[in-house]
Amino acid sequence: MRVVIPFDARNPKSRLSPTLDREERRDFSEAMLRDVIDVVRETGRSPEILSTAPVDVDATVSVDERPLTPLVNELIEDGTPIAVVMADLAIATPLALDRLLGADGNVVVAPGREAGTNALVVRDPAFRVDYHGASFRDHLDRARAVGASVREVDSFRLATDIDAPADLLEVLVHGDGRASQWLRAAGFRVHSEGDEPRAVR
Amino acid sequence: MRVVIPFDARNPKSRLSPTLDREERRDFSEAMLRDVIDVVRETGRSPEILSTAPVDVDATVSVDERPLTPLVNELIEDGTPIAVVMADLAIATPLALDRLLGADGNVVVAPGREAGTNALVVRDPAFRVDYHGASFRDHLDRARAVGASVREVDSFRLATDIDAPADLLEVLVHGDGRASQWLRAAGFRVHSEGDEPRAVR
Repeated sequence: MRVVIPFDARNPKSRLSPTLDREERRDFSEAMLRDVIDVVRETGRSPEILSTAPVDVDATVSVDERPLTPLVNELIEDGTPIAVVMADLAIATPLALDRLLGADGNVVVAPGREAGTNALVVRDPAFRVDYHGASFRDHLDRARAVGASVREVDSFRLATDIDAPADLLEVLVHGDGRASQWLRAAGFRVHSEGDEPRAVR
Repeated sequence: MRVVIPFDARNPKSRLSPTLDREERRDFSEAMLRDVIDVVRETGRSPEILSTAPVDVDATVSVDERPLTPLVNELIEDGTPIAVVMADLAIATPLALDRLLGADGNVVVAPGREAGTNALVVRDPAFRVDYHGASFRDHLDRARAVGASVREVDSFRLATDIDAPADLLEVLVHGDGRASQWLRAAGFRVHSEGDEPRAVR
């Protein structure tokens, strides 16, 4: 099975701009990408990075400027089973990813928060992704429409993509890789006073 | 094992006040509680509700006005293995809860978003909870301090407690019980235009 990690190297993590400047967003997003690369390797697979621009990581990188949806659909059409794992799953673990990669089903989906699809496995070349908007329900519907067997993988660690400033708390609490190290080095810590903990700098 | 569901019947879900009025918050929180009661029953256990005021549900209800932390600690001291499951886990499933209840370990924790503890099993009477603030890390530290074996259960469905207006989207996308029915009947739906889906009314 191919394991593909899409990465936006041009203006990554724009929703973090209230908290991190452009250079910091680039560094932090690359730290998360490197964490995800490590996690894929620890499951015994070789990750392939699909990036919108060159990025300096220790893995095979293909540069393609097209949007994610047509790019992934082209790979699915090829017919080789494929896993697509988002580059911002900063608290993913090999155990959680193994549950996805090892699950039965011609379409296996790990839901993300906010109705998204954070990781999926496709073994049916008739299936098509559409990452726009509330993709999780769309993907279940599309899988059923082509008669593919569907499995959901229930994982907090795969459901947690790091998009918005509030998400940084999850990296500080549950992460132990480069992304959490980067945040701590940048001065972030958990502010626990009151009943709503948050990441502060 | 006792399975306890704490419930605040007095001013439930105050963080939802930008979206739901007081009566709606009460109705919605009771719908979530009934969903959690059903899920516990479907695992073959009898839930006990620990409520701050009387609540009309089809289960054993004990009314106790004390804060959650001393209440749960008193139950732990009794020595009977106990599970504490939050009443706002509106997308929990029997399968997810079974992973918690069936896990080995003298302290088994299902992390919640925002550093919380959404469900836990305690089989060591020396352990103490503290639900204040960033409780997840505290609970891991306290478990290790008393020498209890610790397990984490990695579940998106147990990690998703419904606190804030943005969380309603998760109920609409992933729920199939009374809480999602209540939201739909109250006029909520998934607004999918743009890249950030949300629950709108």
